[in-house]
Amino acid sequence: MTDLLPLPQGFSAVGIHCGVKPDTQKLDLALYVSDRACASAGVFTTNLVCGAPVKVSRERLPRSTARAVVVNSGNSNAATGERGIVDAKTMTGLLAKQIGAAAEDVLVCSTGVIGRFLPMEKFETGIPAAAKQLSSSPESFHNAARAMMTTDTFPKQATATLTLGGKIARISGVCKGAAMIAPNMATMLCVIMTDAAITPELAASGLTHAVADSFNCISVDGHESTSDSVILLANGASGVGPTNDAERTAFQKALDEVAMKLATDIIRDAEGAHHFVELNVTGCRNRDEAFRIAKAIADSPLVKTAICGADPNWGRIVSAAGYAGVPLKEEDMSLVVNDFLLYQDGAPVAFDPKEVSSSLRDNRNVTINLTLKHGSGAVRFWTCDLTKEYVELNADYTT
Amino acid sequence: MTDLLPLPQGFSAVGIHCGVKPDTQKLDLALYVSDRACASAGVFTTNLVCGAPVKVSRERLPRSTARAVVVNSGNSNAATGERGIVDAKTMTGLLAKQIGAAAEDVLVCSTGVIGRFLPMEKFETGIPAAAKQLSSSPESFHNAARAMMTTDTFPKQATATLTLGGKIARISGVCKGAAMIAPNMATMLCVIMTDAAITPELAASGLTHAVADSFNCISVDGHESTSDSVILLANGASGVGPTNDAERTAFQKALDEVAMKLATDIIRDAEGAHHFVELNVTGCRNRDEAFRIAKAIADSPLVKTAICGADPNWGRIVSAAGYAGVPLKEEDMSLVVNDFLLYQDGAPVAFDPKEVSSSLRDNRNVTINLTLKHGSGAVRFWTCDLTKEYVELNADYTT
Repeated sequence: MTDLLPLPQGFSAVGIHCGVKPDTQKLDLALYVSDRACASAGVFTTNLVCGAPVKVSRERLPRSTARAVVVNSGNSNAATGERGIVDAKTMTGLLAKQIGAAAEDVLVCSTGVIGRFLPMEKFETGIPAAAKQLSSSPESFHNAARAMMTTDTFPKQATATLTLGGKIARISGVCKGAAMIAPNMATMLCVIMTDAAITPELAASGLTHAVADSFNCISVDGHESTSDSVILLANGASGVGPTNDAERTAFQKALDEVAMKLATDIIRDAEGAHHFVELNVTGCRNRDEAFRIAKAIADSPLVKTAICGADPNWGRIVSAAGYAGVPLKEEDMSLVVNDFLLYQDGAPVAFDPKEVSSSLRDNRNVTINLTLKHGSGAVRFWTCDLTKEYVELNADYTT
Repeated sequence: MTDLLPLPQGFSAVGIHCGVKPDTQKLDLALYVSDRACASAGVFTTNLVCGAPVKVSRERLPRSTARAVVVNSGNSNAATGERGIVDAKTMTGLLAKQIGAAAEDVLVCSTGVIGRFLPMEKFETGIPAAAKQLSSSPESFHNAARAMMTTDTFPKQATATLTLGGKIARISGVCKGAAMIAPNMATMLCVIMTDAAITPELAASGLTHAVADSFNCISVDGHESTSDSVILLANGASGVGPTNDAERTAFQKALDEVAMKLATDIIRDAEGAHHFVELNVTGCRNRDEAFRIAKAIADSPLVKTAICGADPNWGRIVSAAGYAGVPLKEEDMSLVVNDFLLYQDGAPVAFDPKEVSSSLRDNRNVTINLTLKHGSGAVRFWTCDLTKEYVELNADYTT
């Protein structure tokens, strides 16, 4: 689904199988390394039960001297107590030694099963072996993206360029998703690299802005992960950075685009999903109220199964809005699904169920527009349907 | 699954097919009538998008002169605007005329598809026809219970007796559930009748107490319905009522038991469920924190699919606690599933996955005990697993 994409200047990557996953055909270790110090920032899960790698990386960010990120899939190193913390730090130390950096300048992410100790012996040989294969080639970046996947069916990468001071700078990102995806944040890991020169402060504020409208606006199943991490590394290797408001705006726009592409790819590849749903909630008092309504709708198993079955059971959508914790009256709401007006000012609109059902069945993309009359607060949110395949995939993940 | 149960003295009931449901084999209209005025109270959905019957009944309660409840299944008369309100009031008027009561003394409940107008012509003939068959027999009570069912697979009834002033008083209740079940309240309709003599004040406070630990502690899918209603009618026909603290306590206990039996029956009959899950969250600062943790766990599709697959993926349970909005640390938590200690003081405990998986596979009843170290706040909560059958049932409900 993705073409081979380039890394920004000064970055290299690699993805290998080191043995966390039993299947030797599956890559499970990715490294992302800059040849020089990076301004860096991170945004992490707000789950109070969080993985050891989240604790270790969060403590180290923001930072002006970051050099690398080590990522494994197959085991999240979460709910593993003190030993998990030691293991996460050891992973960063193993990579630091290979690239001549301090352990504190290496960040770490893990994704996979919760509650099992990492097989550290796999990293003791795997990380040095991987480091020897680091490359700036698109193929190597692609393999690193594959090595982050759990139940993802395709690697997720994005890239964008912008012109700063007459020269080209690039932003390239990579993420994994699939399930345990809910705002603040999705069960996802994401590394975004840029060769633009920016301060750690701009890295932090820029990343927060990009995440708010992308990774924090997607939900597969409403279960907030222990391991979500988005890490931005900016190494300045392009020799240019944003130096005025117009350039800062252009940089933010490019960063937002990369984050948005990656976040929507997570929904496109959501576990078992048949439909990609864009939910626009508008006319609210503020963005927060629009967000709460969107999340209530997106997390409702009844809304999600109706979409799965191409069932125009729109009452489930407006009733989810009713329990979102936002003051509203039925007559404040109107609902349009795939261009069909179904509910207007609190009263049902006559429609042909077969026609709407066909539209839901024949289009992988579904658009739900819920409009209120309270103000100009709005949000765009992405979710998917709930299918038998999701249940199958999740009914026996560990055994 | 249920034996034939008696009505309290002075009550009669009936269940017939009147034509809301196309299948003539399916009952869709139930009446519950007292031969004299009742002290009555109700507890209703907190969803701001609520059915017209909820609006009409809520306005009429508490009340000292209630006489009856009319219930239909197959159409919830929700999201139907002003016309829905007129229709709900018309239903009460049709029954009031048959039993010689004021329309305001009749309450109304509807369950089924949202957003369609009621076929009023069915009630114009159906309600008078049903009223002619009202009977105090257990068979008639059973038919009334069946007439409230939507995707329920068995009728849900309960009864209890208590001795007051040397005489027997009875409490009998009936409800329907199946899905769109989440606290405050489940998608459920419930009518509880008693021949004890109580004041409207005791009816209201006693019903609130009974609902808090029963119907508000169950979740099938976390989608809060538009139509949830629990109505208590107390007609005093036994000639006795609670007259002192001991008797009031005994009355409350009997009322709680009836509500608990009905609420857990809803979970036993949850759509597509294979497992009945009792979730005990203890050691919290207060009941509210325990409740929030229990609800986060119960509503997680990942927890529910793991139970479906008999997968001892306990990390999903503790990670759901982590995003419940309750301040906690991992080391505060220990987890026991079906008597197996899996997580203690924030660290994983070695266990045999096959043994735990067998226990989950071989027992329809699953017990999850999550213990914190914050205090004595606790809650008992009931939920079910998420299965492919749930998805199937809900993917084409209207079409």
